[in-house]
Amino acid sequence: MRTDPLRVALLGCGVVGSEVARIMTTHAADLAARVGAPVELAGIAVRRAGRERAGLDPELFTTDAGALVKRDDIDLVVEVIGGIEPARSLILEAMEHGASVVTANKALLAADGATLHAAAERYGVDLYYEASVAGAIPLIRPLRESLAGDKVERVLGIVNGTTNFVLDRMDTTGAGFSEALEEATALGYAEADPTADIEGFDAAAKAAILAGIAFHTRVTADDVYREGITEVTAADIAGAKEMGCVVKLLAICERSRDAATGEERVTARVHPAMVPLAHPLAGVRGAYNAVFVEAEAAGQLMFYGPGAGGAPTASAVLGDLVAVCRNRVAGGRGPGESAYAQLPVSPMGEVVTRYHVSLDVADRAGVLAQVASVFAEHGVSIDTVRQQGRDGEAKLVVVTHRATDAALSATVEELRRMDIVRGVAGIMRVEGE
Amino acid sequence: MRTDPLRVALLGCGVVGSEVARIMTTHAADLAARVGAPVELAGIAVRRAGRERAGLDPELFTTDAGALVKRDDIDLVVEVIGGIEPARSLILEAMEHGASVVTANKALLAADGATLHAAAERYGVDLYYEASVAGAIPLIRPLRESLAGDKVERVLGIVNGTTNFVLDRMDTTGAGFSEALEEATALGYAEADPTADIEGFDAAAKAAILAGIAFHTRVTADDVYREGITEVTAADIAGAKEMGCVVKLLAICERSRDAATGEERVTARVHPAMVPLAHPLAGVRGAYNAVFVEAEAAGQLMFYGPGAGGAPTASAVLGDLVAVCRNRVAGGRGPGESAYAQLPVSPMGEVVTRYHVSLDVADRAGVLAQVASVFAEHGVSIDTVRQQGRDGEAKLVVVTHRATDAALSATVEELRRMDIVRGVAGIMRVEGE
Repeated sequence: MRTDPLRVALLGCGVVGSEVARIMTTHAADLAARVGAPVELAGIAVRRAGRERAGLDPELFTTDAGALVKRDDIDLVVEVIGGIEPARSLILEAMEHGASVVTANKALLAADGATLHAAAERYGVDLYYEASVAGAIPLIRPLRESLAGDKVERVLGIVNGTTNFVLDRMDTTGAGFSEALEEATALGYAEADPTADIEGFDAAAKAAILAGIAFHTRVTADDVYREGITEVTAADIAGAKEMGCVVKLLAICERSRDAATGEERVTARVHPAMVPLAHPLAGVRGAYNAVFVEAEAAGQLMFYGPGAGGAPTASAVLGDLVAVCRNRVAGGRGPGESAYAQLPVSPMGEVVTRYHVSLDVADRAGVLAQVASVFAEHGVSIDTVRQQGRDGEAKLVVVTHRATDAALSATVEELRRMDIVRGVAGIMRVEGE
Repeated sequence: MRTDPLRVALLGCGVVGSEVARIMTTHAADLAARVGAPVELAGIAVRRAGRERAGLDPELFTTDAGALVKRDDIDLVVEVIGGIEPARSLILEAMEHGASVVTANKALLAADGATLHAAAERYGVDLYYEASVAGAIPLIRPLRESLAGDKVERVLGIVNGTTNFVLDRMDTTGAGFSEALEEATALGYAEADPTADIEGFDAAAKAAILAGIAFHTRVTADDVYREGITEVTAADIAGAKEMGCVVKLLAICERSRDAATGEERVTARVHPAMVPLAHPLAGVRGAYNAVFVEAEAAGQLMFYGPGAGGAPTASAVLGDLVAVCRNRVAGGRGPGESAYAQLPVSPMGEVVTRYHVSLDVADRAGVLAQVASVFAEHGVSIDTVRQQGRDGEAKLVVVTHRATDAALSATVEELRRMDIVRGVAGIMRVEGE
């Protein structure tokens, strides 16, 4: 056992950071035994001074994060500030000064992971980020290492706890979106400004990170098609139930082949989808997360657990901390970026899936035939149609076979222009069959 | 990219080995890109010569495994022979000659992992064994690395596909054990000699490996309490159903505290248990595996997937192969054995859980009171009792609160001696509540 301690700088001391500091303090002996050297907190950068943190030496705190990451005695910087700046500059500065980095910053990784990875390579340091996706659930490491000898075909996940809680409440209680969101806010599952969650930005950042690792290809948040859950209605949930499905906000990363050229490509998208009750993801309740991975040799794997929260996220950060410290002690480095495949990222229009389309139509003879012919003209094959009539109005529920998103969009556009179609009540993709 | 290839010796070319060789050949370019150097098969040791393997150079094959592992040009030995000898001697010989080792050999690791780890340490090589537990499901790496900064409290898993298939069939069809086992054999889910699976030896080896990693303590197969599923009857399955449970063969590794001294200790056990339908493990069907992990900070995690089979196990082997090769290229090593905690392993009698006890008793007044007093005398508190009488005979189903296994055993022993107890029809532990 080496006696010279490894020194850790912590950037941020909020919900996650304070938990990281607490565990580092209370479990110091275990961490030292696992690393092979003592691990100590060398400094904690916070935004505002003067706030006491129980059990932590006040001398550790500083409001000058820039000076902290430049210190020569720092082996490892843990970044749990979040956001693009100043996090990126601080991480790059830390690496330049020889420190390895553990971060939970999904937004930064999804926006500019390539810059961070390149800097880690240049300065010969580690960059670990297990906590950036799905909290405590080991997912980055299994994809980056356990499945490194396999070919991942598909990642299908519930990676945002807030939206899963809201959709689960809508499903269980029949509540509308606003009502369920209010409940989530009251219970602490949604933030005061829930935009990043409910509009799918958070899930899209995670999808970019997962797709990048799974397919050995650089994928940024801008490459990810994104729809949130604000448009999901109680009627959509009821429609899903009739189909034996639940509605989930899914992050989906897929490998496919171009129909014309046979060339491999990938897609990444986030949107609400109907998932059959028999699928393991359908049973993921409340704020839990779960990610389904399909690989050529491994088959179907699922990873399940708490996707957020101070302690679970701290668990992931500390796993990375131990790994990076072990690497330091052994004089080695963990895996770097693997983006050699450089597969093209296809736009949403090329995604192939099934659709559930609800139409309000005129209740007269021949309507179904006319609607069906529009689907047919666009090459969208219909699996089932259900017709419900009442008071001169009727509802048509069409479930399609697999078709491209572009073909479905063109179909819907034409349906909207038809006199007999009073409105398109809902369109939802059907996944996980 | 380094051009000098890393050279792999494969010991065994059966179901798993031939799949490893196939993927190494067909996915060579991907593996090279991920490792940072070409990876090539340098030799394959088989028991009998002369059998052709499609797509593999006949020159690679040898029946002299001992000579293969002594070759100086081997970077990595993949051992998929299984069993204690000659696997152990070959692995030790390979390490002595400077090769790192990837193995799927649960029996050897559970019997004598300490010797292998010590040799890896002595010769400065890697020992990876993700494939030894639960096939393709990443489990060793998450426990050994992702949760390295957390405190694992409990591991609860379905880690044997054969027994899960048999129990699932008994549950679904009402079949007895023998009939369900016959079906499993016919479908290829059970081997010709199913002893290792149905008697729980396979699961016990995995429990030893999991407990060792989870608790940073050496645990061998001999430390694991073991009961197979051969005594599970259709009546047990029906009794579980009445309780809203299913019967699963579980591997359970727990951390607890000695009631008297407060000292930490661990237990590891394998036995059939009733699991409530609401528990995620209850829904694991057919030959699938799933492992539930509870950790102090992370909370409850679950890992699910195919637990056996050539391709899934090869996926795990290849993930380790890439990791070990990356370490070679980087000049580092992965994590070694972590057994610093050296917690005592308690015997089964000290395990605390709940029990479902079915008794055939005389159908007369006062029987329930007499039976209840026996439980009370041994300090086993009763949760519920259900009494069914017919034709002068009656059945008592007692579900207890949490009690030690020793107390329950003493209770049952005394019950067996009572005249009014005609027989103990079934005893099963209740887990996962």
